[in-house]
Formats: sequence, C-alpha cells, structure tokens
Amino acid sequence: MGMKHIESERGQSGDKSAAPWQHAVEDVVSALAETAVARDQRGGTAKVERDLLRASGLLGLSVPRELGGLGANWQQTLDVARRFARVDSSIAHLFAFHHLMLATIRLFGQRSQWQPWTEQTLEQRWFWGNALNPLDKSTLAEPQADGGYVFSGRKSFCSGASDSDRLVASALHPGGHLLIGVVPTRRPGITVLGDWDNMGQRQTDSGTVVFDRVAVAAHEMLTDPGPLSTPFACLRPLLAQLILAHIYLGLGEVGFAEARQFTLAQGRPWLASSAATSAEDPYILSHYGEFQLELEGARLLLVHAAAAFDQAWQRGPELTEAERGEVAIAVATAKIATTRAGLDVVHRMFDVTGARATAAALRLDRFWRNLRVHSLHDPVDYKVRELGDWALNGRLPQPSFYS
Amino acid sequence: MGMKHIESERGQSGDKSAAPWQHAVEDVVSALAETAVARDQRGGTAKVERDLLRASGLLGLSVPRELGGLGANWQQTLDVARRFARVDSSIAHLFAFHHLMLATIRLFGQRSQWQPWTEQTLEQRWFWGNALNPLDKSTLAEPQADGGYVFSGRKSFCSGASDSDRLVASALHPGGHLLIGVVPTRRPGITVLGDWDNMGQRQTDSGTVVFDRVAVAAHEMLTDPGPLSTPFACLRPLLAQLILAHIYLGLGEVGFAEARQFTLAQGRPWLASSAATSAEDPYILSHYGEFQLELEGARLLLVHAAAAFDQAWQRGPELTEAERGEVAIAVATAKIATTRAGLDVVHRMFDVTGARATAAALRLDRFWRNLRVHSLHDPVDYKVRELGDWALNGRLPQPSFYS
Amino acid sequence: MGMKHIESERGQSGDKSAAPWQHAVEDVVSALAETAVARDQRGGTAKVERDLLRASGLLGLSVPRELGGLGANWQQTLDVARRFARVDSSIAHLFAFHHLMLATIRLFGQRSQWQPWTEQTLEQRWFWGNALNPLDKSTLAEPQADGGYVFSGRKSFCSGASDSDRLVASALHPGGHLLIGVVPTRRPGITVLGDWDNMGQRQTDSGTVVFDRVAVAAHEMLTDPGPLSTPFACLRPLLAQLILAHIYLGLGEVGFAEARQFTLAQGRPWLASSAATSAEDPYILSHYGEFQLELEGARLLLVHAAAAFDQAWQRGPELTEAERGEVAIAVATAKIATTRAGLDVVHRMFDVTGARATAAALRLDRFWRNLRVHSLHDPVDYKVRELGDWALNGRLPQPSFYS
Amino acid sequence: MGMKHIESERGQSGDKSAAPWQHAVEDVVSALAETAVARDQRGGTAKVERDLLRASGLLGLSVPRELGGLGANWQQTLDVARRFARVDSSIAHLFAFHHLMLATIRLFGQRSQWQPWTEQTLEQRWFWGNALNPLDKSTLAEPQADGGYVFSGRKSFCSGASDSDRLVASALHPGGHLLIGVVPTRRPGITVLGDWDNMGQRQTDSGTVVFDRVAVAAHEMLTDPGPLSTPFACLRPLLAQLILAHIYLGLGEVGFAEARQFTLAQGRPWLASSAATSAEDPYILSHYGEFQLELEGARLLLVHAAAAFDQAWQRGPELTEAERGEVAIAVATAKIATTRAGLDVVHRMFDVTGARATAAALRLDRFWRNLRVHSLHDPVDYKVRELGDWALNGRLPQPSFYS
Repeated sequence: MGMKHIESERGQSGDKSAAPWQHAVEDVVSALAETAVARDQRGGTAKVERDLLRASGLLGLSVPRELGGLGANWQQTLDVARRFARVDSSIAHLFAFHHLMLATIRLFGQRSQWQPWTEQTLEQRWFWGNALNPLDKSTLAEPQADGGYVFSGRKSFCSGASDSDRLVASALHPGGHLLIGVVPTRRPGITVLGDWDNMGQRQTDSGTVVFDRVAVAAHEMLTDPGPLSTPFACLRPLLAQLILAHIYLGLGEVGFAEARQFTLAQGRPWLASSAATSAEDPYILSHYGEFQLELEGARLLLVHAAAAFDQAWQRGPELTEAERGEVAIAVATAKIATTRAGLDVVHRMFDVTGARATAAALRLDRFWRNLRVHSLHDPVDYKVRELGDWALNGRLPQPSFYS
Repeated sequence: MGMKHIESERGQSGDKSAAPWQHAVEDVVSALAETAVARDQRGGTAKVERDLLRASGLLGLSVPRELGGLGANWQQTLDVARRFARVDSSIAHLFAFHHLMLATIRLFGQRSQWQPWTEQTLEQRWFWGNALNPLDKSTLAEPQADGGYVFSGRKSFCSGASDSDRLVASALHPGGHLLIGVVPTRRPGITVLGDWDNMGQRQTDSGTVVFDRVAVAAHEMLTDPGPLSTPFACLRPLLAQLILAHIYLGLGEVGFAEARQFTLAQGRPWLASSAATSAEDPYILSHYGEFQLELEGARLLLVHAAAAFDQAWQRGPELTEAERGEVAIAVATAKIATTRAGLDVVHRMFDVTGARATAAALRLDRFWRNLRVHSLHDPVDYKVRELGDWALNGRLPQPSFYS
Repeated sequence: MGMKHIESERGQSGDKSAAPWQHAVEDVVSALAETAVARDQRGGTAKVERDLLRASGLLGLSVPRELGGLGANWQQTLDVARRFARVDSSIAHLFAFHHLMLATIRLFGQRSQWQPWTEQTLEQRWFWGNALNPLDKSTLAEPQADGGYVFSGRKSFCSGASDSDRLVASALHPGGHLLIGVVPTRRPGITVLGDWDNMGQRQTDSGTVVFDRVAVAAHEMLTDPGPLSTPFACLRPLLAQLILAHIYLGLGEVGFAEARQFTLAQGRPWLASSAATSAEDPYILSHYGEFQLELEGARLLLVHAAAAFDQAWQRGPELTEAERGEVAIAVATAKIATTRAGLDVVHRMFDVTGARATAAALRLDRFWRNLRVHSLHDPVDYKVRELGDWALNGRLPQPSFYS
Repeated sequence: MGMKHIESERGQSGDKSAAPWQHAVEDVVSALAETAVARDQRGGTAKVERDLLRASGLLGLSVPRELGGLGANWQQTLDVARRFARVDSSIAHLFAFHHLMLATIRLFGQRSQWQPWTEQTLEQRWFWGNALNPLDKSTLAEPQADGGYVFSGRKSFCSGASDSDRLVASALHPGGHLLIGVVPTRRPGITVLGDWDNMGQRQTDSGTVVFDRVAVAAHEMLTDPGPLSTPFACLRPLLAQLILAHIYLGLGEVGFAEARQFTLAQGRPWLASSAATSAEDPYILSHYGEFQLELEGARLLLVHAAAAFDQAWQRGPELTEAERGEVAIAVATAKIATTRAGLDVVHRMFDVTGARATAAALRLDRFWRNLRVHSLHDPVDYKVRELGDWALNGRLPQPSFYS
C-alpha cells in the first residue's frame, strides 16, 4: 500500500483523485491551450471558449446535485478555476465569476429566486455575467410603485458581461445604499459596450455596461436578506477574494512550469559558471528553491482558506459573525500570499530562462501582464493592514465587498 | 456545535485539545518562565530545570504506551518543544534532543538494544545527551577483538551532554566511516567540559566532550542496521531538522507575542502619525500583518511536514526511498520557512515596540540571540538549493546527517 | 548666488547645465515621445527615428572635438542615452551601442583605422551596428593569404544591424580565439534578417546577421592591439555594462514619473483609507518613498561609476590592470543597483496607479517588458558574485566581454 | 601620478588624505579597541575613555580654527564618529553628540553666548551632554522676574549627561512651547541618575536627569533666535540625523569587516558545497556581494548628504527654507539607507561566519544590539513617508526635532 501521497508539488499541481468532472476539465484545458497565445494577442470576447464551457457542463459545477448540478464544493470548484488559470487566466476568471454570481443569488436572495434561476442555468446553459462593481456609483435605481426599480447609468469593470445570459447588476438607491438585481443581459435598455482592452486579462470582457432606463422587477431584486445582510451573506466577498487567490496561484504555477521547461530544455550555463548545465548552476537552483518555497507556502494557506470557507458555507444561515471573521482572516492571508508568490514568480521567471524566453511568439510575458492587472482588483496594502489589525488588536475584518 | 475551530492564531498558538500531558507541560512552562531571563544571563547548566523535566514525566513523551511512555506522536512531541521554546529555547532544545536520541537508538539499532534502553529511560528518568556531531572528525574508534571499540578524542557541539545519563556518541572507524555508540555519561574516560558560553542558546550545554580511551562494548554499538542505513533509518536527520524548525517557529511566535504586548501596553504613536494610539498606526499595523503572514505560512508548512513525518514513521522499515524523499522535501520547506519567519520577527519586532523595549532588564534581545545562534546549525542556503534541485530536476535530497 | 543645486531628483532628472547639444537632444526626445507607444506595438526597424538621429548630429556626440565631434565625455554621452530611455529605450540602446562601436574601434584598433572611420562617421552620418555577440560561436573566420579573413556563419542578437552603415562583427579563428572586424553592412554576402520580434526592446533590431563568405580585409581587422588585449582595451566591456545601467535607470525613472502622474491625476484613495486623496494615503506615500530611495541610490552609484570610467578613459594606454579593476567594481555595483531599482519600480508602479493604468492604449507595461528583456543581457547573479569576490577576497574581476 | 583613487572600499573605509587630527583619532581608536568588548559587557560610564577624548583635543574638532579649534567641517567630524563607531559605537555617539551640542548653541543662540562657551570648551576641555529630549514633556520651565527660568522635572534619554561639564537642557514653557537652556552639569538641583542599562549602546549613559528647581539665567537661555526658529537653525535636527546615519554605517562596516575576517580565517565550506574553501563558496560570495552593494550605496548617499549639509552650514543665516529642505531630503535618504544596510549586515553577518562566531567571548552580537537600539531613535517608516511625500507631492519635510 504505502503512505498516502503527500501533496508537495513541483510548482504545478495536478488534481490527484479523479473527480467525475476531471475529463471535462482536461478537455477544456486542452482546447484552451491550443489558442491561448493567439487569443491573448487578439483580446476581445472568447465566444468559442465560452460556448465550450457551456457545452462542458462545468457551468453547473458548484450547483448541488439535488438541483441537478455536479455538486462540487467550493474548494473543488476553485481548483478547477486554478487549473484553467494555468492555461488561460481570462477564461478562469469568467468561469469562476459565473459561479460567484450563482453564489450571490444564493446568499443575497430567497430560495424562490435562486432555485429556479439555478435550475434554468443548467437547463439553458446560462453563462452569468457581472455588473456589480460597488465602487462605481454612477448607476442609479429609481423606485417604482410596484416595488420594482428602473436602473440608469453606466457600470465599469463588468467582467463577463459580453455574451452573458444573465447579469447581476448593482445600482444606488436614492437613499444611498446599494441595491442588487438580476436581469437578462438581452433586456431592452442594456448595452454591453465591449470596450475592454487592457494589457492583461485580455479576454475577460471587463468593460462597461450601459443601463438606459432598465426595468428590474421586484422579484428580480436581491433584497431579502440582501447584500452583506447577515454573516452568511457576508461570505460573498470572501468567495470573490478566494477566486482571485486561486487564479493568482494558478498564474504563479504556470510561470514556474514554463520557466522550468525552458531551463531544462534550453538553458545554458553562464560563462562564469562552473556548472555543466544550467540546471546545475547554484544560483539557478537557488531561484527554483525560492519559487518552490513561496508557491508551496501560498498553496497551503490557500487550501486552508478554501477548507475553512467550505466549512462556513455548510453552516448556512447559522454562521456567526466570529466564525465568518475567522474565515475572512484565512482568506485574507491566502490572498496576500498568493498575490506575492504569484507576482514574484511571473516577474522573476525570466532570470532562470535567459533571453530566448522573451521571444514575442511565446508571449511568456502574458503571465505577468495577467497577474499584474488582476492583482489590482483591490490593494494588497489594505489586506495586510486588515491582517495586522486582527493580529495586533484582535479585530475581525469589517465586512465589505472587498473583505 | 458550530464550526470546528479554524487554526489561525495570532502569533501564539495554544494547543487546542487538552492532551493528557497538557498540565505537566504548562507546569514546566510556568516554572521556566519565572527564571528564563535570569538564566539567559547566567548561562551554564540548567540543573533545576532539567530535574523538573525528569520529574514531569515528559522525557517519556514520545515513548510508545506499550513501553510505558506517554505515547505522543512526533507532531505532539515537537509541539511541546515549540511550546517550551516560547519561554526558553535552550530547555526546548535539550528536551527535543533527548527525544531525538531515543529516536536515534530506535532507528539505528536493534530492538534488543532500544527496548531496554527506552524502558530504563522511563524507570530511571534518564536524560539523554548528544555527542554525535558528524562534522567534527576528531574522535576515533579503535576496534577491539571482542567486537567493541575504544573511543578517543574530542567532540564539539555536544548539546545536553552535561548532567546527562546516557550519551549517543560518534567516532570515526579507521576505515573512515562513522560509528555510533551509546554510553553512560559517567563511564570512566568521559569528561564533559562544560565550556559552552555563547551569545545565545546559553543553557544548551553545547560544549565539548572528551573521550579518553572510552570502552564501548559491541552491544552498545548502533551498527545494525546502523546510521543512515535504510530509508527508515534516514528519518533521523529529518527529525533533527524538524526539531529545529519547531524551535525556530516557537521563537518567532514569542517574539511576536512579546512585541504585541509591548505595543498594546506601552506603544505611543509617533509625532508625525495621525493615529490616536500606536496600535492604530498604519505602519505598525502593516508590520503586524507581515509578521502574521510569515508566521502563519511557516506554521502551516510545519504542520504539514510534521504530519508527513509521523506518517513515514508509522510505515517503519517498509518506508521507501521515494517516500522518505518526499518527507525530506516537506521538512526542508518548513525548515527554511521557519528560519526566515522566525529570524525576521525577532529582528524586526523592535520596530513596533520602540526604544523602551530595549531595556536590559527585559532581555528581549534573547529571542534574536537564541534564534541567530540556533539557525546556524546548518546553512539555509543549501536547504534552498536542495529544494531547488527537487523543484527543477526532480531530485530527492541525498540523505546525510543534515538532509 | 545661493547654494549650488543639490542633485536629488524626484525620480526624473533633468540635465542641469545646458550642454551645447541639449536642444538637439530635446528635439529628438519630443519626436520619439509622439510615436513611442505606436512603435512599441509595431516593432520592426525605426527607420524614421534612426534618420532623425543621423540628422541630429548626435551620432557624433562622443567623438572628440579634434575629430569634428561634439566632444562629450562618456558620462555626458550616456546621460543622453538615459534621457532617451525615458521615452524610448529601444532607440536609447541603438544610440548608445553606436557609440560603443566607435569606442570599440578606438580601443581594439590602430589610429590609422579608427581615425578615418570616425571621420567618415561624421561626414557620411554612419550609424554603426553590432554583430559581435561573443557567446554565439557559429560564425567562423577563414584566414586568407593576404592577411584578411572570410567570415561565414550566423550571428544572433545583432542589435542595430538593420539600417546600419557599418558593422563590428566577430568570428572565431580556427585556433579558437575571437576575431573582430569592421565591414560595410551592405558588403556582398551579408544579410540582415530582420527577425527580431520580442516582448520588449522591440525596435532594437537585435536579430540575426548571416555571413555568406564575407571578405574582411586585413586592414579591417581589429587585431592590433586587439580585443581585450590591454587594460585600456578592457574598458570596452565596462562601457557596454555602463550603457545597460544607464538604460535601466532611465526605464526606472520613467516608470516612476508615469506612475506619479497617474497617482496625482487619477488616483482615488481606497475605501478603507482615511486619506482624502490617493496622494496622502500612508501606503502610497511609502511606496513612493521606497521608489525614490532605490532610484536615488542607484543614481549616485551610476554617477560615481561613469566618472570613474571617464577618468580611466582619459588615462589611455597607461591604464593599469588595478585601475581598470577598480572601475570594473564601480560599474558592476552600479549595474546591479540599476537593474534592481529599475525592475522593482516598473514591476510595482501599478500598485500606486491602480487598475486604470493598465489600459492597453497606454502600454505602460512596456517599461517592464523593455527592462525585463534588456536585463537578461547577462545574469545579475554573477555580477553579485563578482562583487562578492572582490569584497571578500580582494579579487578584481577577470576581464571578459561581460565584466 | 595615475588616476585619483576611486573610493570603492571593501566594507571599511580608511580616510584617504591624512588630516592633521588623524593620529589623534587612531590613538583613540586603538585605546577603545582594547577594551570595547569588556566595556560592552560592563556598561556604565566610560570615564577613562571620555577623559581620553578630552585629552585628545578631538572635542574641539568641529570648532573653527579662528576660535582655536581643529576646524574640521561636518563631513570630516562625522567621519571621525563613523571611524569610532567601527570600534565602539557608544563612544562614537557621545563624541558626535558633544559636537551636536556645540552646533546647537551656535544655531539657536547668540554669538555672545556660543563664542565664550565654545572657547571655554577648548580651554577647560568641557564634554557636553544632552538633556534635550523634546518628546519627554515632563520638565517644566517656570519664568522668573529677571528673564530667567526655573527648571523642574525629569528628562529621559539624556545621552552623555553623566560625567559631562555642560548640559543642553529643554523644558516646557507654561505656554506650551519648548525652551532650551545651557547649564553646568554640577549646578545645584541637577541629578544625573546613571540609570541607563540597555541591551545595546551600553556606555552612552542615556539615562535620566532630574531637575529640582534648577535656576537657568536669562543669558543661559537659547531664545534668540531660538530652537527651530529659522531655516539655518533648522539645520540642527538634520545634523542629529546625519550623526545617526554615520554611526549606523560605521556599525554596518565593522560587521562586514569582522565577518570577512572570520570567513577568511576560520570559514569551512559546507559539506554539500563543491568549493575548496568557504571563501569560494557561491552562496558565501553572493552574501558578500549583497553586503558590499548595500553598504556602498549607503556610503555614497551619506557622502552626498554630508556634503550638502556642509554647503548649507556655510550659507549661514542666508539659508532659505527650500535649500534647507533639499538638505533634509538628502539626509533622510542617507538615514534610511544606512539604517537598512547597517541592520541587514549586522543581522545576517552570521550567515557567512558560521556558528563559531557566536562564542560569547567575541561578543559579535554587540553590533546588532548597538544598531538595533540606536536605530529606534525615530521610526524609519516615517522617514520613508517623508521621502515619499517629497517624491510624490514635492513637499519638503516639515522641520521638527526629527526631520
């Protein structure tokens, strides 16, 4: 028999036990890999790949079996996102944010709302998009007599809105608080501008959505229990943070893997080196040791945080503020560690590959561009501060859309 | 009910579930704490504290229940060492190395050897000391006609030799290979010089032992299977490394805890700070966030490595080279991380306490002095290289007394 | 009167005293700035800009006045390269390497060679290109009866070969040593492939030159005193290193300047910040302090190294090994510091600009791409080792094409 | 002949041109070196060494020749302090703060005050002490009818008060502003407690001075122009900062030098190293390269700052706010760099010496203890912020006793 396999991977982790969806995942991965470089160059909407995801059934990955989904827990779902991130972090983001939207309706709405929406998601292969950016306060919600609202304005950074079937959209109530509703993307008045053109994460369609007097019915509003209303509802931002952390780690892991392949296949020892090959050079070995160290540390923190999150999710509405707070700390820790480790590897990987790895055709800079862009979602400085406030003062993070 | 407690400690971890030996541990801790500062100043042999350990029964902590011991696994045993390190890292070292000696006879010798020795350890409250330093090649073993040897020479860095009852001693065979024997410390010809006087780890008695034609009988020699003879026997250096990692982490944790107490009780915001208290200062919070991040990362890596080690230990002689190699990687990773995190915290803790924490009476510099000395056991550069060689080339560490 | 201006710039230095060529420089800078973003996207040969340099007279900047040049010393010449690097590091590289080629003929050849070539450079506005890469050993030199050679083979990383008028080319003598000759780029048998397409430094034309039995006459060979033949000749690699350092610093400075403009104009304080503006946020201020610190430190080391280099250059053939060695140490120090500071700023500048600075239209990632590519010229690890060998063992660097 | 010596030292700089006071300095250095280890252990007042300084004439080093002094400028004076710091940083501090007190009377008082005091300093070999700590607000000044004051209260961190002849003392005016007076240390009512006992800087006598209704005459008060009253007067805190920076650098330099000596004389390559000696080990070389890099960078920044300071001092009362501000930036930059470089070297030096360097008899930990304590004078975080505020917002530091 022997001892259980100890997870201590060389920069790139395969998922050990074959989950039922493993084949579907690897099929998508293979397809993504073939075109990832070309699509990074092109940018725009990854229509073919989005349809591939629709066809794969993986848009139902986090949906409980009793509703017809694949029944993965969050750790499993996000490990798939991390796997995708190793070949295409834009698609990984769209995939994970789709599941975040499904979690959002679950956490902020009523069963009478999220159950049918979820079921329809499976039946009609809906891809959910995001129009929720709470920092952009330029969309307003005008209350209607029937309890519904009319949304007007522009919303920026709407990842995955293009080619989506449903949008989770936010707007400001005249009283100043945030309202969230669910609308079909094709509803009259909604225009998805497709104006995302960035140095990284180029196929996330994180552009602008314009709302021109869009009617949102009362039953489409997520007001009961509503956004960030209970400790359980406050898991939503933690899931968002956890998604980012998985994508950052996946990017760090692919940077490591690509560098390694380069060193082994094409590395040549520097003329002042006494090593016979690049792979025996003391400084090259040192760099790989450092990469491994930081990736492995981040990996364990992430596994720990994801397990804590799943445990809290299982608790449902019983979840207390303190319990939620402890998950928040675990997630914040993992978020900082994956940001740091990932950025460091994709920035420094070239020190171990040498100049030939910078050929434009390889586009190995895309890992840095993707992570650099994605890591700006919210500032790591304030995550460190949050962690420090807990470590020093014992204060749990104040729930917000970013903590 | 509620969710299982998530381990995410604020720099200082209590052991959650009360183990049967918890009271004994806390009693020792309290006693150590009262005199730790004075003993750091004085140096020399901690006779009173060594007898306290003898009386506590904790010298049998790692001994299996079937032999009359407390039956703790290695993770539990080393967590006690880490707990001790938070008040007195010299005693922690002596305690842990005693258990390392018990593991040594188990791994390098025959049951007919280690079983009676272990039983006598419990009955007679033996404290084991170390005279094994394989880097010091000045002790020679002269073969005798009856299969025994005569040891002659000096051995340096013999932690815990003073006031010990049994020594695990090494000497060079005329053929050049290392031999290890077990001898009563009071055997004629053995002199423990008591010449350890260092800037840190001041009560570890890591001085010189002189062997003046010391007879070591054949049945006292650990030659079957012998040092580093099998993958299972090669767990010995990994246990030594794991001990160091636990002590380094304990030192980092106490540095954090003492700094925190200082900031909360005596900190004053700098005149250019807009914060009302030191504990609200953005930079102070940042430092604590960084401390927490690195300690927590090191902690998870250490827990992972200790669990892997226990699993391998359970495998016994069946353990394969590859399995042992994977444990070696986990241990190396944890060793580097705890060295770095610990050193960083005990070095930078003063940045968050301010100048008053440097009063000589507090001796808060002892954490740095202890960790600085202890971290020189073997160079972290070569651990990083070892990790890199695995990460890049897939090579498992070559077993030695340091890897 | 007042005190002499103290050079302590905010990340971007203007040249204080207006040199006679200052207007020409600023004209080129303005022209480059207008198209830099577009040309970074396009890649290829910067024909218009190269002709602009030809017309500017700046290709004669380092040429002594007695030969009709502008008579700038090396510090002045390289400060112009650094100034160019702040708007276009490809052009900066081509410009500086042109001057490196002029230095090469001066250092490796006879006056009867370099004087007419230098004069023709001014008269005919020659732009010199590089086909010297000593690490690529695939070009061979076949000795001819008349003392000349025939060069055959391919040479990689030939910066500035496209659209050049003269090439400094290297080839291996059958005996194994490196030979260097000067040839018109349009000589029959020479093909400049124009195959450079990299993630950064996209307009440096650092592609392949093919030599198909190219005749190089005896009087075109730089064999007296020859490559790296004397301490004075060994200044050549130091000039190359110094050029790199100036370009790296220029890139760090422009990264800083662009980030600053962004923070001031568009920064918004994070929601958890108590600062009124982004520019008052404690962590943002901290980042700028760190950027300033590392850039200023690198700047002083670079100024020191350039001054040492000019002093050594003035010494001419009298220069001793020891004197050359001290310059090598100063240059190595500056090279490491500018690499580190530059890379750090262009990598982390996005932490202080926020996500909007990642819009593709701005191409602010080009500073990172350019510096990342350029910093792979030779490994910084071995520069640090070189410095360490001097610091510890008092050994001066062994002259090579990289030290 | 040859080229001017380029300053690029191996960790420890000798002063190149023999100044007239060079012999006196080296005599003091030799004497200090003999007893430095023992005195670090003992602590207390360095009476013998203070008298040695009195006898050496070096207490008049910064005094202009026209007043009978040695006429050194500040750069020269502080280089002597840095030289002292390489053998005894407590004495270096007392020496430098004595000169700071002389500068204080010059900057805050009238010629009719500072000229006779300065002349008496030379004639009677006064050693000045410090009782000025502006952060300790517990000493009050009661105005008297004759324009004088009565000082009452306690003052902490009074470096060099023990065995001093004159004190510069501060007290709070009932109106809340700081007043500064000069008093003979032996004046009735003054008690120097001698209660300094710290982990580092053990012979700086930085303890408490008690004022029990001490009369300070009007002509002893530094009220015209008064503390921090003009840009020129505001040079005082910059001199204090510059002193600290010189001592920090000196400590880093001696850490480097002692480590180097250890590596060369006693280092042994690690068993996994392929190097023949420790001094050829690639990682050891790397560490020395890093030490050299950071020390040299700090050194150049310090030289630059000291030159700027001297230039500003020469300007006298003409000095403008902007000019003073630029010096403040140069000094802040040097202060951060020397703090970082110094701390890093004295913390990490043991990584290149190995365990034998930790023997208590060597007390090599004293460099860390001294620098760790001294670097807490004022927080480096806020110096970085100050620098950032200038780099980003163009704001010159607000003068205070720490900037």
